[in-house]
This record gives sequence, C-alpha cells and structure tokens, in this order.
Amino acid sequence: MNDPIRVTVTGAAGQIGYSLLFRIANGDVFGPKQPVILQMLEIPPVMAALEGTAMELEDCAFPLLHGMVLTDDAMVGFDGTNWAFLVGAFPRKAGMERSDLISRNGPIFVGQGKAMNAVAADDLRVLVVGNPANTNALIAMSNAPDVPKDRFSAMTRLDHNRALNQLAKKMDVNVADFRHMVIWGNHSSTMVPDITHVRVGRRKAINAVGKRWYKKEFMPTVARRGSAIIQARGASSAASAANAAIGHIHDWAQGTRKGDWVSMSVYSDGTHYGAPKGVIFSFPCVCPGDGSYQIVEDLELQDEIKTRIQVSGEELLKERAVVADLLNG
Amino acid sequence: MNDPIRVTVTGAAGQIGYSLLFRIANGDVFGPKQPVILQMLEIPPVMAALEGTAMELEDCAFPLLHGMVLTDDAMVGFDGTNWAFLVGAFPRKAGMERSDLISRNGPIFVGQGKAMNAVAADDLRVLVVGNPANTNALIAMSNAPDVPKDRFSAMTRLDHNRALNQLAKKMDVNVADFRHMVIWGNHSSTMVPDITHVRVGRRKAINAVGKRWYKKEFMPTVARRGSAIIQARGASSAASAANAAIGHIHDWAQGTRKGDWVSMSVYSDGTHYGAPKGVIFSFPCVCPGDGSYQIVEDLELQDEIKTRIQVSGEELLKERAVVADLLNG
Repeated sequence: MNDPIRVTVTGAAGQIGYSLLFRIANGDVFGPKQPVILQMLEIPPVMAALEGTAMELEDCAFPLLHGMVLTDDAMVGFDGTNWAFLVGAFPRKAGMERSDLISRNGPIFVGQGKAMNAVAADDLRVLVVGNPANTNALIAMSNAPDVPKDRFSAMTRLDHNRALNQLAKKMDVNVADFRHMVIWGNHSSTMVPDITHVRVGRRKAINAVGKRWYKKEFMPTVARRGSAIIQARGASSAASAANAAIGHIHDWAQGTRKGDWVSMSVYSDGTHYGAPKGVIFSFPCVCPGDGSYQIVEDLELQDEIKTRIQVSGEELLKERAVVADLLNG
Repeated sequence: MNDPIRVTVTGAAGQIGYSLLFRIANGDVFGPKQPVILQMLEIPPVMAALEGTAMELEDCAFPLLHGMVLTDDAMVGFDGTNWAFLVGAFPRKAGMERSDLISRNGPIFVGQGKAMNAVAADDLRVLVVGNPANTNALIAMSNAPDVPKDRFSAMTRLDHNRALNQLAKKMDVNVADFRHMVIWGNHSSTMVPDITHVRVGRRKAINAVGKRWYKKEFMPTVARRGSAIIQARGASSAASAANAAIGHIHDWAQGTRKGDWVSMSVYSDGTHYGAPKGVIFSFPCVCPGDGSYQIVEDLELQDEIKTRIQVSGEELLKERAVVADLLNG
C-alpha cells in the first residue's frame, strides 16, 4: 500500500461532488493500492450538508479513505494537495450572459489559484470542471505563478465521452472499440467534436457514418446534449460529469490506453493546430502515466475543422479579455 | 469477456438508484470482465427523469454497459434477469407508523415477486433495499414460489459498514483490518450490532473499547445513524446505501473475503441462533463466490445478544402478521 495522497474537491457538497467523492474513495481514480485523504472545500452555507456527505463516506467503510478534511477555507482545503478537482462554480442562471458567468466566477478561481500557489504539494495537478471551465482554469493558472503551466487542465472529457456514445449508437459498436476521438477548443457551444480521425480497427468511422450525418446529426446532438439532459432530468448532468472527471484524472495519473488518446483542455503555447497562445484549449493528449501529458502532433486537419478551431480559439481570447484584470497574479 | 448478465434495478430514478447504476455499469459489482444489461424499473410519473439518467449512463461510455431497458412494467423489468436490486419503495412520511409503511409497501413486492417468478432467469438472485426491507423481501419470496428461498435477501450491509466505521474511529484502526462484525435481526431499530466476535489480528475489539462504550455509545450511534444523516444532509442516505448494496451483491456474486464474513438478511429456517422460522433475518454469512451463501455456525453468543435477537425476531413476526394476507402467493 502506498502512502496516502491528498485530493481536493471543491463544491464537494454539490451534485457532481456527491457523485465524485465516493468513487474517488473507492479507488476508481487512483487505483486499489492508493489511499487518499479527501480535502473537501465548500462555501459556508452548505457546510452542514457537507458534514452529512462526509458521514456517508465514513459509512461506506472504504479501506482507501485514510482521512477527510472539511473546510470553507481554501488555504486549508489545498494544503499539501496533490490532485485538485475544481468542481465548485457559480451556476449560470436564467438571463445570465456567458460574460456575466465568467465575471462572476473569476474571483473564485483567483483565490483558489493563489491558495494552491501558496500551500499545495510540489506535484500538484489540477482539473477544472466548474464552468466556464477553460477560462476558470486559465485564471487559476495565472494566479499560481510558481506552479508549472502544464499542471492545469479543464474538462472536455464529458464531451469526448458523449461523442463516443453517439458514434457507438450510430455504428452499433462498443465504445471501447473506438480509437482517436478528438474534442478541440473550448468547452462551450463552439467546441469541435472531430470524428475524422476515429477508427474501429482499420475502419474509418467517418466513412461508415457519412459526412452528412456527422455535420447534421452528430455535431448538434453532442453540442446540445447538456441541455437535453437538463430537460429530461430536471437537473444538469452530475454522475456523467463526475465520471468524466474520474476518467480525466485516472488517465492523467495512470496513463492513457495504449494506441489511443483522450481530449484534455490544457495550456496552449500557440504552436499546435492554430490554437491561440495563452488560453486553455482542448487537444488530443497522450499521458504516459507519470502525471505528464503530450499533445498529439502532426494530425492532418480538414479545412472545416481548422475553421472551427479558429472560431473556438477566438471565443477563448474574448473570454480571456473579459477577465484580463484577474490574470496578473 | 463474458456474456452480458441482466441486472434489474427498481426505483432506478431515485437517489439511491442514481448512486447505484453508474457503479454497476462501471464494473464495481460484477467485475471488469462482466458486461451488464441494466433493466431499470420505475413508476410512470418519473419515466422522464429515468430517461435522463439513462442518457447520462450513455454519456459515461462504459465499455461494460451492453444495453439498457427502461420500463414501468415489472414483467419487462424482470424479464430474464439474473440479479435484482429492489430499491424502490414507498417512503415513510411524517406521522406514518411502521405498520402503515409495511402495509403500503406490501403490494409492490407482491407484484414484483409474481413477475420474478414468471419471467426472471433460473439463476435469479434478489437484494431488497427498499424499507421495510426484511419484510418486503419475505413478501417477494412468498410470491415467487418457484424460486428457491435462498435467492432472496435484504440489506443489513449498511448497518454492518456503519458499525465497522464507528469501531474503526474509536480504535483508530483501518476498517479493512477488522474481521467478524455481525448485524443480527431486522433492519430496524431492533437490529443487533454485535462486536463481541470482532478481531483486529488476534486482538478482541470488545476488550479494547470496553462494554460500557459498546452499549452506551456504539449501539445507539449505529442505530440512529440514518436519522443523523438526514438531519445533516436534509436527505436520507443515498450513496452509502448504494455502496452497501454494491458490497452485498459483490460479495454474494464474487465471494466474501478470506477469513471474514458479512451480514446478510436471509431466510431463517428456525435452526440458527434462536431466530424464528419463516422470516428474513440478518446473520453472519460466508459466500464462496458461486452465488450461494452459508450462515456461519456455532458462534457463542452472550446472553444480552441472545435476548436482543429474540426481540428483533419477535418484531419480524409481528411485521409478518401485518402482511399475512400477502404471503399466500
């Protein structure tokens, strides 16, 4: 059995947190030999509910759960942390523009970035789930100048999984048989689900489903999936979002499947696929399992994908402009 | 990869269902090589919400999830099923007596028992989670006369896990280091958490914690844990109940740990530890991993435990009397 690692979850009393914490404690993220100390950060009004969640975690008798910290203080919640799931964010309310959402959430991630910079472990790695995830991750990164940029990521894995599922249903193939799905860009309506690289064995998926279906059915379905679930459930995606976060960190920590990659939103230095420099952008990434990742190089892109990547990149630059005053550290 | 098995979950759109389904689809119950077809049974008013849950299950891209059935018809929900999690039940409302709860729930389990008798797979096994779980399981069993009695069980695993956790906190020992916890009797306020057999290595837990703590602190804390969680969370235990159901079926299907047992409520034939004949009673059980269980024999019981077992047995007989007209098949 390894020494315990510290795992921070913000928004721990929320719906995604409730679906996430038990699976982390069960070993679904870091494996059956890795004990964890869960550091759960919340806002003061929900600390009592968080206490109830912690009691339930105790009542699961998880052998890997070696400790819990419940706090509303970021300096405590990130103290010594190795992995941070930044789930908590101010939700979008009716009538709010995306720019309002960005401005409202920015300060949360300034504070969390500063706290991580001050007290997290040297090997800290961060996944931002709370929306607008890419720009929130950029804000946290910018406010943690002592932490290398490649430790910050935002989640496009739910979009990646949704895209896999749509394709699997269409082709009647198990999701596990696909390789090389890509989500490019921002986790927003401009994201670019790209199936042009996807294969099942030697078969190219795009040839099986046709370009018309890809453009007219697949793209809108993936883009609108979140709204469709809210409509059916009366609540936004929680367990599937938690599952995507689990997959993202699992693969980052333990390695991506041999012969495949995953979609991760990571720092763009301006040298990959026309994505602008200085934003958090979704790319196909391979993780060797040591906590690093590499952006997959030299994919040949269709013109339409290139154009869409540019549009999504421009959106990210606009989001960055909205929070420019929060990026100086 | 094995052939898929069929797993029915009733009350699938509820909170416990939401915590349970994703972990079944992830392989937490039947292992990483066992595909499943989830057959989700609900009542008509929540079929839309169930549809949303199913969309989220799809969006997890679980390789082991080979199919889903969504239905409000028990004959469809149990068709060919190998394992049934009976989670759905009418909840206890303010001012309801336990006997009201029993009467209200009985007809649900009559219908489900008859449906399982008619259409389930030959190797069907059943766990009842919905309260009053023991008597609900008895009703289902009685209405499925062609299914062997030892295929029906009710859940005392959450109590078992809660007891382990209380002891682990008191002794500052990892839960995994304990052996031989027992919950006897009914899953109700009369249940008997028995730590007199519990060991950590060669050390007897009761000697470490003392009888006074056991009686004055441990027993009431375990018995009142459900209420304490409702008070903190503003909602009843969901993820921890789902986790206990996962543990129960996992161990039944795949085997209990070597050198240990678990608590399962199973059919009492009147020959074990003074438990009355003809009720579903919690005993220490060992599962070899082939879908069978054996009640652990020849434990020496303290007089007080014997007395409490009798009280819990009498309660189960009273519950049986309330639903006598539902037990004739």
